[in-house]
Amino acid sequence: MSDVAVTERSRVRRGRKIASYDRETIYHILDEAWVCHIGVSVADEAIVQPTSHWRIGDELFIHGSVKNALFQQVLKGQTACISLCILDGLVFARSAYHHSVNFRSVVLYGKGRLVEAPNEKRAALNTMLEKYSLGRSSEARPANDTEMKVTAVFAFPIEEVSAKIRTGGPNEEPEDRALDVWAGVKPVSIEVGELIAD
Amino acid sequence: MSDVAVTERSRVRRGRKIASYDRETIYHILDEAWVCHIGVSVADEAIVQPTSHWRIGDELFIHGSVKNALFQQVLKGQTACISLCILDGLVFARSAYHHSVNFRSVVLYGKGRLVEAPNEKRAALNTMLEKYSLGRSSEARPANDTEMKVTAVFAFPIEEVSAKIRTGGPNEEPEDRALDVWAGVKPVSIEVGELIAD
Repeated sequence: MSDVAVTERSRVRRGRKIASYDRETIYHILDEAWVCHIGVSVADEAIVQPTSHWRIGDELFIHGSVKNALFQQVLKGQTACISLCILDGLVFARSAYHHSVNFRSVVLYGKGRLVEAPNEKRAALNTMLEKYSLGRSSEARPANDTEMKVTAVFAFPIEEVSAKIRTGGPNEEPEDRALDVWAGVKPVSIEVGELIAD
Repeated sequence: MSDVAVTERSRVRRGRKIASYDRETIYHILDEAWVCHIGVSVADEAIVQPTSHWRIGDELFIHGSVKNALFQQVLKGQTACISLCILDGLVFARSAYHHSVNFRSVVLYGKGRLVEAPNEKRAALNTMLEKYSLGRSSEARPANDTEMKVTAVFAFPIEEVSAKIRTGGPNEEPEDRALDVWAGVKPVSIEVGELIAD
């Protein structure tokens, strides 16, 4: 796949060397992460809330209560900022300054499209279930009309978006390499355990 | 410890039953999480970025390049919104609608105080190192003046803040309990592995 177009807003300024606009890279990060943080502006201040997300093609989906206050800004057509970060490691350098983390993050700007067509809405929510467990959408009792009605689903175009990816060991000043200080990476991973049956 | 004061902005509206304003509960979540997402408003739209954080007493700290564009809004005195979420489990219900996640989240509103006094700034950064590995601040080569100068440190009061905590198994409609559908919780945890030496 190719790069997404880079806009003035989505262009990475700090850490350009670790920036990526590669669509496939961005999709992988979005698909692996369980939680994103969505922000909107209200009266010149930001509101940021965590929420689950999932991807279908070139759109990122979130859902929630139709009464969610943050969603009202999305419905008004305000561009939201969706940001997420997968932590991959704690990076220990020989100098305090060069301590860092390995991570893969995405920042996306976009206007949310309210998914209203019943078939599309149901298909979207089913895709979320499939992210949690393959085949789940055909196992669980389908949502009834009331349950569908109180759930709002939004789709955001994955267009104005960038990723940042840090990997590898610590950066060091050349003169610090000889210091007798332990250094390296402690890998961080998210583990999903076995089902504890209800 | 006691509850924080609840403001109109920090009061949890959706999911009141799982809301907490208990200071100790909030501190534990802040201390356990590695990454937060900070949002500010620029021209009526939000910018949200992931960053590391740490806590000293009743203040939450972040740091980064002095050139960070988002920090400019904090310096101007704008109230930022800092949000984070620890995922604890995937919750599988017998009905599609009641699928959920177990999590602990915090949403904090506050004005950032630029930490300028050299002693306080160095102590704050040392506390971050200690979060990553106990004793680290006395092992690593201390930051020199140039390294200190290019690093901005901000402290946010942990006052206008709320937590949300979901635990336990799936909620179910009574009539769904008899359905022949597997249900329960897959626990999710963050694992920090052994050091891979540099």
